[in-house]
Amino acid sequence: MQFAAEVNVVEVGPRDGLQNEDKQVSTKDKIRFIETIAAAGMPRIEITAFVSPKWIPQLADGLEVASQLHLPPSTRTLALVPNMKGYESAKKANLPEVAFFLSATESHSKKNINKSVAEAVENLKEVAAAARADGKRIRCYVSVVFVCPYEGKVAPSAVADVVSHLLAIGVDEISLGDTIGAAVPSDVTAMVKLLTRDVSVNKLALHFHDTRGTALANVLAGLDAGVQTFDASVGGLGGCPYAPGAAGNLATEDLIYMLHGMGVKTGVDLDKLIDAGSFIQGVLGKNLPGRYLQAALATRAKAQAAGATIA
Amino acid sequence: MQFAAEVNVVEVGPRDGLQNEDKQVSTKDKIRFIETIAAAGMPRIEITAFVSPKWIPQLADGLEVASQLHLPPSTRTLALVPNMKGYESAKKANLPEVAFFLSATESHSKKNINKSVAEAVENLKEVAAAARADGKRIRCYVSVVFVCPYEGKVAPSAVADVVSHLLAIGVDEISLGDTIGAAVPSDVTAMVKLLTRDVSVNKLALHFHDTRGTALANVLAGLDAGVQTFDASVGGLGGCPYAPGAAGNLATEDLIYMLHGMGVKTGVDLDKLIDAGSFIQGVLGKNLPGRYLQAALATRAKAQAAGATIA
Repeated sequence: MQFAAEVNVVEVGPRDGLQNEDKQVSTKDKIRFIETIAAAGMPRIEITAFVSPKWIPQLADGLEVASQLHLPPSTRTLALVPNMKGYESAKKANLPEVAFFLSATESHSKKNINKSVAEAVENLKEVAAAARADGKRIRCYVSVVFVCPYEGKVAPSAVADVVSHLLAIGVDEISLGDTIGAAVPSDVTAMVKLLTRDVSVNKLALHFHDTRGTALANVLAGLDAGVQTFDASVGGLGGCPYAPGAAGNLATEDLIYMLHGMGVKTGVDLDKLIDAGSFIQGVLGKNLPGRYLQAALATRAKAQAAGATIA
Repeated sequence: MQFAAEVNVVEVGPRDGLQNEDKQVSTKDKIRFIETIAAAGMPRIEITAFVSPKWIPQLADGLEVASQLHLPPSTRTLALVPNMKGYESAKKANLPEVAFFLSATESHSKKNINKSVAEAVENLKEVAAAARADGKRIRCYVSVVFVCPYEGKVAPSAVADVVSHLLAIGVDEISLGDTIGAAVPSDVTAMVKLLTRDVSVNKLALHFHDTRGTALANVLAGLDAGVQTFDASVGGLGGCPYAPGAAGNLATEDLIYMLHGMGVKTGVDLDKLIDAGSFIQGVLGKNLPGRYLQAALATRAKAQAAGATIA
């Protein structure tokens, strides 16, 4: 196995993570959460979504969050915008990057947004054109890329079609999502291999969910296939809407621990990142599923107890 | 990446898992747990340890468990035996295989059993000779093979020394343990590559803990390096004595889900195995950390709720 010397981690916890959490988090706490992540050196953070509050009540304060944040100049921020109205908010907040989303399968697309995949791409054209005209970078999340809850295994060729349509409307980066966390490493290898016949690997990101424990093994297969951008969520924040109680997003700490251990650079200070996970756990009043986070907090608690005994 | 068509899974939950659980499990429940695992087609199960009850109170009923079990003839059982007294119990129980343990580092060995590694090997000679004379298969767990909590990263050459000593006294299989769950895939690749210069890969097994989330990615690296035997524990039963609250053993369900998804055979019926995890969770009165188990139980609960609504 061969790996890149450096990997781009995209922190999606403040958006993809929080949007699946029932407990309402205050604007102040969201800001502190994002600023703590940025203070750990995270290079790129999806800070919110500019969507109807009816659709994602948790992120109704997107514009306040975006405008009140104080981040280092090196932190790149992005936000999810499903339409022109959302895009205008992102523009107002002066974000350098916006993100769309789309399903890889017809059934998931119909159930999720009541549109075919072709209609969904058509719908994004106007926003994409506006973003390009304004010099903003465009990312698109493609959902259920590997396995669809309605159609089962997804053919890489079908995903290749969606990817080519997205590139045609000006999308810069495509984040391939294992939305229900059902992919295994051989799926990842096959998908990346097929897609990179026509598309530069630099245009692809991988977005794994750890619902069945395979997320980090899938990252390894992705790295081996040449992918250099991976999404993750602090502490594995987010859960799985398809299986309540199950784990959701790949935990950022687990990803970074593995990468650093293998000599792959990310620019993130893992110890400082624990502060972000510890903080948001406190806000939500529950333990997050991330393995490294729990091990680190257990070790911290043990050290504190030992210190208290000595003192 | 290239993988074997078939992999040997060794279920260690009833021993390595339960020995780290505080709540005392009754003999009857241990038997039912093991029989449920066997009913799912698990080919090899470590059923208990024949050790001093002072050392592992949870497993004080080893001989009762072993003698009262009803398993299919195809299930191979083994038990941990640290000395001749333990070996005599294993012999009385008519087990076809016994397992020893040993540390890879001097510091861990001293702290764990107050012996140097060489003394520990010396101590196993008599039991190994007895087991060989009785035609029993011998496995040896080597602890802290990748990272030691006292010495940090362990040199593969040091492990190679330990392995050669163990093979010299007649050990058939060596299970390389990432006891504190700190290894990353590149460690696994380097270790297996060095060890297999002198030792057949068929004599090696990998035993990962998921303390930092890397267990399944490490399995992938091990598979890629040619290893075909992996230890795992139902539901990730066991925890981590070095970081209370953190995850411990690799969850068997996660391992099997990944292997089957990649077309690698194990002989285990994953759906039936969920019954074993569900049962032992009920006995212990807590959720286990295994990802697939939680997702499967959430899906079952959802289906039951839907069924109840329809009915």
